[in-house]
Amino acid sequence: MPSQSHFADALASAVKQRGNPVVVGLDPRWESLPAGLRSNSDDSYDAKAHAFAKFCQEIIDVVAPLVPAVKPQAAFFEELGPPGMIALSQVIGHAQGRGLLVIVDGKRNDIGTTAEAYARGYLGREASAWHADALTVSPYLGDDSLTPFVDTATERGAGIFVLVKTSNPGSGMLQDVVAHSEPIYCRVARHVEQLAAATAGQRGYGSVGAVVGATYPEQLAELRSAMPHTWFLVPGFGSQGGTAADVAGGFDARGLGAVVNNSRGIIFAHTRPEYAEKFGSARWHRAVEAATRDMIDQLRAATPAAGLYAVP
Amino acid sequence: MPSQSHFADALASAVKQRGNPVVVGLDPRWESLPAGLRSNSDDSYDAKAHAFAKFCQEIIDVVAPLVPAVKPQAAFFEELGPPGMIALSQVIGHAQGRGLLVIVDGKRNDIGTTAEAYARGYLGREASAWHADALTVSPYLGDDSLTPFVDTATERGAGIFVLVKTSNPGSGMLQDVVAHSEPIYCRVARHVEQLAAATAGQRGYGSVGAVVGATYPEQLAELRSAMPHTWFLVPGFGSQGGTAADVAGGFDARGLGAVVNNSRGIIFAHTRPEYAEKFGSARWHRAVEAATRDMIDQLRAATPAAGLYAVP
Repeated sequence: MPSQSHFADALASAVKQRGNPVVVGLDPRWESLPAGLRSNSDDSYDAKAHAFAKFCQEIIDVVAPLVPAVKPQAAFFEELGPPGMIALSQVIGHAQGRGLLVIVDGKRNDIGTTAEAYARGYLGREASAWHADALTVSPYLGDDSLTPFVDTATERGAGIFVLVKTSNPGSGMLQDVVAHSEPIYCRVARHVEQLAAATAGQRGYGSVGAVVGATYPEQLAELRSAMPHTWFLVPGFGSQGGTAADVAGGFDARGLGAVVNNSRGIIFAHTRPEYAEKFGSARWHRAVEAATRDMIDQLRAATPAAGLYAVP
Repeated sequence: MPSQSHFADALASAVKQRGNPVVVGLDPRWESLPAGLRSNSDDSYDAKAHAFAKFCQEIIDVVAPLVPAVKPQAAFFEELGPPGMIALSQVIGHAQGRGLLVIVDGKRNDIGTTAEAYARGYLGREASAWHADALTVSPYLGDDSLTPFVDTATERGAGIFVLVKTSNPGSGMLQDVVAHSEPIYCRVARHVEQLAAATAGQRGYGSVGAVVGATYPEQLAELRSAMPHTWFLVPGFGSQGGTAADVAGGFDARGLGAVVNNSRGIIFAHTRPEYAEKFGSARWHRAVEAATRDMIDQLRAATPAAGLYAVP
C-alpha cells in the first residue's frame, strides 16, 4: 500500500490493514541502547551511527508486521554529524523495504526557495534524496512557508504534518495565546484544515496533517471535529503521560484520522519495569514486541471504532 | 577571536576587527552555480555535493579577509541527502579554518531531550559533531524547547538566533497576530531578551540572539531598543528587497548589535546585471568580492556608528 499515489490514502490503508494506528518512534539514544549493541563499539560518531542503524533496523524487523508506520527522529541521528545522517538514510530505506510508511520527524521549515529545498529533499519515495513518505513541519514562518511543502507533497504523493498543538508543557507559551477570541493553535489548525481539504484523497483526508499532542485530550477531541480532512500525528503517548483514553477523541467513526506515536515506551521497553524482569536487556527484541502489542491492545480497547479495524 | 569563550563577544570582536557586520549566506543552488563548477560534474547527489563544497569553499577563500561570519543554509545541503551533509560539514570546517564564525541556518527545534540532541549536535566548535558557532532556532514549541539550546550554548561558548520577525511576506500570519495588545513576535522578543540578558558577555550581549528581517525596518528599530542584550541576525538584504537604510535601525551606538546576511546577492553576484558584464561567469570569484565590498560600503554609509568601526 505504500506505493499508493496519495499519502493520506496510503496511511488509511496501512492502518486498516494492520488493524491499529500505532507509529513506532525511532529515537535512538546511545546511553539507552541495549548493552549488546554498545559493548562492541567504541564511542566515535561512526561507531555510534553504526549502532543506531543496527538498533533501528532490528526494531523495524520486529514491528513491521504489526504497525503501519515508523517515525525516525532526525535530531538523534543529526547529533552524530554526517555518519548519523547516513544511518538515518539506511533506516528509512530499511523500513520501506519492510512495508512500513516512514514519517521523518524533522520539524523543518524556512521561507521561499529554501522551504522548496527542504520539501524537494525530503518528500517522496522516488524523487527525493531522503525518500520519506512524510515530514513534520513547523508553522512559525507563516502560510507562504508551508506552500512549497504542500505543492511538493501533492505532486509526489507524499505528506506533511504541521505542528499545531504540541505535547510539551511549554507549548502554551505561543500556541495557547488567545487573539481575536481563539488561541494561536486554532488559527494554525484552521489553515491546516483548509490545506487538507484542498488536497483530500479518496478517504476524505488530505496530504497535509497536523501534530496534536496526546497530553491535551480536550484539544485533541475539539480539533478532531474542527478538522475533518486532517490526519493527526499524536505524540506524547506513554513516557510523556498520554494514555489510550486520552487519544480516543482523535479518531473518526471509522477509526481513522489519527496515528499515535510511541518512542521510548517501545524501543526502550527493556528498561521499563513491566518488561525488564520478563525479558531483560538480552531479549530486548521481545520487549519491543510485547510493548507494541500491549499498546495496540490498549488503543483497541479505548477506541470506540476499534471494532471496525480488520484484526490481522 | 573565534576561540573566545563567549559567542556574543566573539561576534563583536569579529565585527570590530573586520570593520563591518556582513554575513555571507552560503545557499548553494545547482542551477545557479558558475558554469565551470557544473560542467565537470554529473548530476548525482555525490557530484552535486562535491560541487557545492568546492563552490562554498572558494567563496569562503574570497570573503574570509573581508567579513566576520558566514551562514550556511542547511536546507540546500540537506536536499542532497547524506552526501550534502558531508559537504556541509566540510564547509563549516573550511570557514573556521579561515578565521570565520559559522552560523548554521537550520531553524531547528523540538521538545525536551530531542531539543537537547539538536543542541548537543550543533553547538560548539569542540564538543559537537557539526561544530557550529551558532544555530538558528524556531520558537513555536515554546519556552521549554529553547532551554536546552540556551544551556548548551552557554556551557560551550556558542550562540543561538531565535526566529522573532522573519523577512517573508507571510510572516504576519502568526508573528503579527495581536494578543493582549502586542503582536506575537513581541512576546517572543521579550522572552529572547530575557534569555540574552541572563547570558550576557563582556560587551553586554547574550548568547541568545534574534532573527529579525531587513524587510521590516520599523520593527527592526523598535526591537533594537526593546532588546538591548540581543544580537540580531538580519536576513532579507538584497534579493529580498532590504536596503542599507532599512537595516540602519538595527545597530546600537557602537555599530554593534546586528549582523546583516546576504546570500544570493553575493554568492551569485556573477548573475546580477551590475556585475555580470564586468566579470561574467568565468570570473565569478571577482564578482563575489566586488558584491561583498559594495555591500560593506553601503552599510558603512548608511550606519550612523560606521565611523566607530576600525577600517581594515
